[in-house]
Amino acid sequence: MDETMEQLILHEDAISGNCYKIRLTAALIGAPIERRQYHVLKGETRTPDFLGQVNANGRIPVLQIGNRFLPESNAACWWLACRSPLVPDDRFDQADMLRWMFFEQYNHEPNVATLRFWKTYVGFDQLTDAQRALIPGKQAAGEAALRLMDEHLAGRDFLVGDNLTLADIALYAYTHVAEQGGFDLGAYPSVDAWLAKVAAYPGYIDMDG
Amino acid sequence: MDETMEQLILHEDAISGNCYKIRLTAALIGAPIERRQYHVLKGETRTPDFLGQVNANGRIPVLQIGNRFLPESNAACWWLACRSPLVPDDRFDQADMLRWMFFEQYNHEPNVATLRFWKTYVGFDQLTDAQRALIPGKQAAGEAALRLMDEHLAGRDFLVGDNLTLADIALYAYTHVAEQGGFDLGAYPSVDAWLAKVAAYPGYIDMDG
Repeated sequence: MDETMEQLILHEDAISGNCYKIRLTAALIGAPIERRQYHVLKGETRTPDFLGQVNANGRIPVLQIGNRFLPESNAACWWLACRSPLVPDDRFDQADMLRWMFFEQYNHEPNVATLRFWKTYVGFDQLTDAQRALIPGKQAAGEAALRLMDEHLAGRDFLVGDNLTLADIALYAYTHVAEQGGFDLGAYPSVDAWLAKVAAYPGYIDMDG
Repeated sequence: MDETMEQLILHEDAISGNCYKIRLTAALIGAPIERRQYHVLKGETRTPDFLGQVNANGRIPVLQIGNRFLPESNAACWWLACRSPLVPDDRFDQADMLRWMFFEQYNHEPNVATLRFWKTYVGFDQLTDAQRALIPGKQAAGEAALRLMDEHLAGRDFLVGDNLTLADIALYAYTHVAEQGGFDLGAYPSVDAWLAKVAAYPGYIDMDG
C-alpha cells in the first residue's frame, strides 16, 4: 500500500504546543490531516479506550497513519517531513536538527511548556504543593534553555544551517507562547527575531489555525 | 572532505549511560572512537573552556566529528548509525524508532537515570531536600516507563520491527542498570528477556568496555 494514500488523523488537544508542531509541519508540507480532539484536563487521554487503542502512555499527540499509531510529537513531525526540505539531507545537519529536537524535549518542554500549562490552564490555585515547589527550578531551567537558544541564534536565521527545519518548528511551538508560562521574551532578542522569521514563513499557520 | 575520514572524539563521563549509548553504537557499527573523560561530579563540564568549545549546555556526551561538536546522546547515535542497519529504512519504522528515543529522553531518563545518579553516585545523604522530595514521583514515573516497555516487549524481540535498532540501544543504556536507581527489574520479565537479547548481540560491549 502506498503510505502517501493512507489517511492521517491527529489525536490531539488544541491547547497543546506538542500537537501544534504536527499541524504546523503538515501545513508547511501541504499534507491534509484530520483532527480529533481530547481534553487532557478532563482525563480524556486516560480512558481505557484511549490507552488501549491510541497510546498506552496516555498522552497526546498521536499521529494515526492508516491503522498505525505514532506517539511523540517530534517523531510524528519526522514521519511527515522526512522526505521534505524541512529535514536536511546533509548528515551532520540532520543529526544537528535532531539534537535540537532532543534538547527541546529534555531541557525546554518540561520547563517552558509545563509552567505555561500550570499557570494558564490548570491555574496556580489548583496546583499541589509539590507542583508549586517545582516552579522556581522550572523557571530557572526554562530561562537557561531560552538563553542557550538566544546565544545560538545570534547572527543566524534558523537553528540549523540556513533554512527552516523541524528543529525550528519543535522549538517554536512552546517558545512563542512562553509568556503564558511567565517567561519574558524581551530578554531574548535573537529568539524574538527568530520567532518572527518562523511566523513569516510561507505556509505558516498559527496555533489556532 | 569525506566525513568518514574525520576523527571522532567522544567527550564523556564513563559512568553516564548517555555516553555508553554512543560507545555501544560505535562498537556495533565498527567505528573507531577516541574517548576524552570529564568528571561531572567535579564540575568539569561547567568550566569556561568546556562551555565555550564543547557544549554551551554544560552537558556530556558530546560527539566531536572533526572540528564540529554534536551534543545530545541520541543525536550522536543517529549521526553514527544513520547509514547502517541500526536505523530502519522503512518510513514508519524509522519514525517509530525515533518515537522510542524521544520517550527515552522524556519519560525514562529523567526518572530512571536521575535516581541511579542520585542513589549510586551522589549518595542519598548528599541530596538536597528539594531533590529528596522528587524521589517518589521519579520512582513512580520510572516504574511507569518500565511497565510500558514491558507491555510493548511482550512477544517481541526488539522495540521496533524484528531487528535491533537505535531505540533498543537508547533504552538499554539506563534500563540495564536500573537496579542502581532502586528499580526491581524482576517485575518486568519481558524487559529482562530483551536486555539479554541486546547483550548477546554480535559486537556488543558492556558499559565498562
